[in-house]
Amino acid sequence: MTESTLAADKMFISYNNIHKLCQKVAKEIMRRGERPDVIIAITGGGMIPARIVRSFLKVKGQKNIPIQAIGLSLYEDLGLDEHKESIGKEVIRTQWLDFGSLEQHFDSLIGKRVLIVDEVDDTRTTLHYAVVELEKEVQEQQRKLNRENEETIFSIFVLHNKDKPKKAEFPDYMMQNDRYLAAETVPDVWLCYPWEAVDIEEHTKLAIEQGNN
Amino acid sequence: MTESTLAADKMFISYNNIHKLCQKVAKEIMRRGERPDVIIAITGGGMIPARIVRSFLKVKGQKNIPIQAIGLSLYEDLGLDEHKESIGKEVIRTQWLDFGSLEQHFDSLIGKRVLIVDEVDDTRTTLHYAVVELEKEVQEQQRKLNRENEETIFSIFVLHNKDKPKKAEFPDYMMQNDRYLAAETVPDVWLCYPWEAVDIEEHTKLAIEQGNN
Repeated sequence: MTESTLAADKMFISYNNIHKLCQKVAKEIMRRGERPDVIIAITGGGMIPARIVRSFLKVKGQKNIPIQAIGLSLYEDLGLDEHKESIGKEVIRTQWLDFGSLEQHFDSLIGKRVLIVDEVDDTRTTLHYAVVELEKEVQEQQRKLNRENEETIFSIFVLHNKDKPKKAEFPDYMMQNDRYLAAETVPDVWLCYPWEAVDIEEHTKLAIEQGNN
Repeated sequence: MTESTLAADKMFISYNNIHKLCQKVAKEIMRRGERPDVIIAITGGGMIPARIVRSFLKVKGQKNIPIQAIGLSLYEDLGLDEHKESIGKEVIRTQWLDFGSLEQHFDSLIGKRVLIVDEVDDTRTTLHYAVVELEKEVQEQQRKLNRENEETIFSIFVLHNKDKPKKAEFPDYMMQNDRYLAAETVPDVWLCYPWEAVDIEEHTKLAIEQGNN
């Protein structure tokens, strides 16, 4: 990023920039030999980076990595005033894993490398919820199936980590083992993603001017 | 599309072109007053157009349209030789709707406008499966809940419809009511989507040369 980007109120990001951020992180994952067995996209924001990163994690002759989607929203983003009382329980699920269909064709998540994908790590609330709840779910399955000796490894990939105080933290072992992969750490500015642009040509021009292409 | 595109073996499509195709179809949907209540993305291909089209279906002051993902793959694409015997049952589900979570916050699909999204209509097998199975599912729910008088309206949005013989057809009423929305109908060439590009700058250049920007 250039200095002019940092100075701006808004950071414009082109699609090609998003693509390259996914490519960069995928390369790092492959360099470490940590190719995931399953990708979990947090809808809506995680859907685009999840699909792109999968391309770069493909290995010739091997199946595409399956993508599961989970729908998580913050109450505040939904503008659901009727939920005002639910402080501390800020995240709502609109979709969860479909273990039934997944296991039928790809086994369960137990003992697997799982890459959780979202576009931005803002307050960390949603991502924290995703990690904690997915771990809980897998542990329950392990107990049920008597497979508690198998290690399931969760990693996180986001396009942008906002450099700001977080409302929740990831488990320590996750940070110690570099399992949190942010393609870029950015100041706490307004991130203008291309999929929100009304005029994509103008948006791309601004992104190029800011060096985010 | 230009003639040179038609002549080429491969059709290169830029991200910005994808964005504009989504924008075009969303505009048509809004013009008709047919804004969907739920978007169903077929993973992985449908994830990117689903997320983009949602931006253009947004109405100020209203909640984002919820996206549900369903995972459908063709056996042939998965290279699962062990399933060779399953001719006629070509589609496998890797994820299905999570009615439980959906209903908790957005009601069921009954009586709603549902937009099913995928990137390409090739042989129509996957899309046909999606429509038929989703309709079946909703009808079952309607019977259970005694809500059979409510009409659920399924529409389909794809970026590209390949002009070729199809292995399955959509229900007649769907075609008669213009509920199949293909942003572009293209010849049966190799579609190079940007999310598969190893060198996105080169890919974008080729797409621009072909007029797909």
